[in-house]
Amino acid sequence: MCQLLGMNCNTPTDVSFSFAGFAQRGGRTDHHADGWGIAFFEGRGVRLFVDSSAASDSPVAELIRRYPIKSRHVISHIRKATVGEVALENCHPFVRELWGRYWVFAHNGDLKDYAVRLHGQFRPVGSTDSEHAFCWLMQELAKAHASVPPVDELTRTLAELVPQIARHGTFNMLLSNGQALWAHASTKLCYVVRRHPFTSARLADEDLSVNFAECTTPDDRVAVVATTPLTCDEHWTLFEAGALKVFQDGALLAP
Amino acid sequence: MCQLLGMNCNTPTDVSFSFAGFAQRGGRTDHHADGWGIAFFEGRGVRLFVDSSAASDSPVAELIRRYPIKSRHVISHIRKATVGEVALENCHPFVRELWGRYWVFAHNGDLKDYAVRLHGQFRPVGSTDSEHAFCWLMQELAKAHASVPPVDELTRTLAELVPQIARHGTFNMLLSNGQALWAHASTKLCYVVRRHPFTSARLADEDLSVNFAECTTPDDRVAVVATTPLTCDEHWTLFEAGALKVFQDGALLAP
Repeated sequence: MCQLLGMNCNTPTDVSFSFAGFAQRGGRTDHHADGWGIAFFEGRGVRLFVDSSAASDSPVAELIRRYPIKSRHVISHIRKATVGEVALENCHPFVRELWGRYWVFAHNGDLKDYAVRLHGQFRPVGSTDSEHAFCWLMQELAKAHASVPPVDELTRTLAELVPQIARHGTFNMLLSNGQALWAHASTKLCYVVRRHPFTSARLADEDLSVNFAECTTPDDRVAVVATTPLTCDEHWTLFEAGALKVFQDGALLAP
Repeated sequence: MCQLLGMNCNTPTDVSFSFAGFAQRGGRTDHHADGWGIAFFEGRGVRLFVDSSAASDSPVAELIRRYPIKSRHVISHIRKATVGEVALENCHPFVRELWGRYWVFAHNGDLKDYAVRLHGQFRPVGSTDSEHAFCWLMQELAKAHASVPPVDELTRTLAELVPQIARHGTFNMLLSNGQALWAHASTKLCYVVRRHPFTSARLADEDLSVNFAECTTPDDRVAVVATTPLTCDEHWTLFEAGALKVFQDGALLAP
């Protein structure tokens, strides 16, 4: 199984603290050593870092830990290969453009016998079931809307599409277009919202604490979504099976 | 004016030496300080690094100089903003997927009143004339072929399409799909092919020399394309105006 990390905020925030713990799971505290990736939205632009070596040893991951890139939408993934060989083109997150916006996607889980027809506008470059599912999602979004719709409309469309993929297996996924973060859990995903009054938190995977009160303003709000809780002293809420949640400006939107 | 750098090789080669000199032009020896980017093919996968700060000061550019990423197809760009604000989404190279392959594109020059109609499969995310031209090129390639054609067929199609863009202004560009490197010059582009017997070379923009004989095998072959010569003691061949050249396995293909 792979591991997912997502962050959604109302002001650009660096993900260094969460990523420090998360990256340890790529080879050190856990066995997800078959590549990793992280995507940061910066306005409409995206910085994507992917690497087919273990996140815990990667010089690129080291750069992310040290160079605080601030972003309002971040998606990261650590890979344990199940379908598709260990290769750069199989590392998540995947990025495609639709309606003049980049879409970033990462998936955890296995889809069995997943071979839905793709008509051509979006084709997988690698050999994972995940990228195939992402291409199908993009294809169906492109059919459902003529241009980028409001977040709530996109959520309604995704709520129809996602179960059609999820019935093929485990489909824990994160998706963002730089406006919101969509998260779907088949089996395993949890989230925490950090807001005023901020407290301190300690990583579960590394001996590192941070006092958020020292590096935030009272207006800041940050939602973090992960496969399993990244900190050992915050209240993480588990997703119910089959839940599709939307985070915008660091808050969970009402269903 | 921006600056372009492309590399095409028969074996995965690191671009550190050329990039060291090239990156100096982003803010230090020249005034292209409005962002930069570099894309490396690794098999079918692509690593893309983009940054809206000057390449000479960027921690990400520092990583590229120190961490030798080996690739057979590299495209890099340093930006001096003319059309489109300084923002991550306006940094070259741009990447799109077509026929299950990534396509990487970078452009130097200005296209005047360039507003050709885009039908929808490829839309610019940023506001540059360059990304608009790239989207049109992808759209027309998608219309001309049903799946990825052989390199010589692609070259014939590009030879029909590129002049249609170039008549709008200056269109020096690099394009790769991980199989070959296409380079078109309206005004300014040059190349060198390094092959056995290898000699040493000295950068024009930094006090740095390398003896290629020490880090190559006799079978290696590397083509480097750049806006202006990167070294001061090698024979760089200038592109004639309007030339479209194709490099594969480190060699210039016959027209």
